[in-house]
Amino acid sequence: MEIPVIRNVLEANDKMAAQLRGLFAARGILVLNLISSPGAGKTSLLERTLTDLAPEFRMAVIEGDLQTDNDARRVAASGAQAVQINTEGGCHLDGNMVMQALGALNLDGVDILFIENVGNLVCPVEFDCGEDAKVALLSVTEGDDKPEKYPLLFNLAQAMVLNKVDLLPYVDFDVQRAEKFATMANENLGVFEVSCRTGEGLEGWYNWLRARRAAKKPA
Amino acid sequence: MEIPVIRNVLEANDKMAAQLRGLFAARGILVLNLISSPGAGKTSLLERTLTDLAPEFRMAVIEGDLQTDNDARRVAASGAQAVQINTEGGCHLDGNMVMQALGALNLDGVDILFIENVGNLVCPVEFDCGEDAKVALLSVTEGDDKPEKYPLLFNLAQAMVLNKVDLLPYVDFDVQRAEKFATMANENLGVFEVSCRTGEGLEGWYNWLRARRAAKKPA
Repeated sequence: MEIPVIRNVLEANDKMAAQLRGLFAARGILVLNLISSPGAGKTSLLERTLTDLAPEFRMAVIEGDLQTDNDARRVAASGAQAVQINTEGGCHLDGNMVMQALGALNLDGVDILFIENVGNLVCPVEFDCGEDAKVALLSVTEGDDKPEKYPLLFNLAQAMVLNKVDLLPYVDFDVQRAEKFATMANENLGVFEVSCRTGEGLEGWYNWLRARRAAKKPA
Repeated sequence: MEIPVIRNVLEANDKMAAQLRGLFAARGILVLNLISSPGAGKTSLLERTLTDLAPEFRMAVIEGDLQTDNDARRVAASGAQAVQINTEGGCHLDGNMVMQALGALNLDGVDILFIENVGNLVCPVEFDCGEDAKVALLSVTEGDDKPEKYPLLFNLAQAMVLNKVDLLPYVDFDVQRAEKFATMANENLGVFEVSCRTGEGLEGWYNWLRARRAAKKPA
């Protein structure tokens, strides 16, 4: 009973995502969809990135949460444009929500649009939001078995940010094991070991962003 | 379009959950549905609990994961009966899956059945599996804002296990803030600060289990 329903929803979403993709392509905006468990550090990564790369790029953020506008307020403190979507119980963002959110953003001159999805390692993965790439975040406190247990995200993502490496001395987390399963799911996955708390390792992530941004230069 | 579909699915699930609840009541089994983000420590809590309370109770576990039987193998190492459900992409367990899993368990003499849901702070909350109580896990590495951002789980749960307190010195986590929002969502929530890694604080959780077990004594 459930499967055909989900297919219809996904098909409808794919059409909306294609519209979004065309809209972003026409403006030459690089769009990244950040997906992780709750608390892996998506907002913290954005706070760092929006601040550190502000001299290089104009950036905007769509924040997805069940409720509250805490995260939009956090990222807006960097000076970037931010809009909050409250899903009111919904477990993922979809193309319709992103299209609605665009009405509240001025896209003129925007180089990079970040979509911070609802904290959830499962449901957001299947809902295309018109992004150029999905970025998976994983934190070392979640356990090194997560890429093995949730492979679809790592299969579909183009980068994995392994966050909270400053906590490695205090947890039982085998970085090699996690990265082995993540890259088994996707051998082209870019992997960046960082701490958004200390700033360690962020330059590799920034270089990946710069390269993706350069490849997307508008016509 | 999506809302009526979800309602139908939830109504069908509620009927199955009522059947399960009758079955568990007839056998006097206490059933607990463990819900958290991926990596908050559900399996670690079960490993400790199954080992430490083995002299007192006969316990069984239904493990839910997208794939792998890693967790069922981990908890079975304690000697408890365990069955693994692979949802193959599904983001939560439902009543049908639990009913199917029961076919692989011998419920004779079982005092407590733990259902370890798919790691997800959103979707499992609405799918009743016939349990007596939902137990929410939160780890201090996920951020103290999670009860505010995901209130439904804390509203519906009867206990919250705050795990990984051994990492409090290394993270920015305000225990009072987290507990304030969790108990705002549910003033009767039992809160237990523990470390499944060191064993700290588990006795409070065990006492809650003992009290719930005593209240469920079969007719």
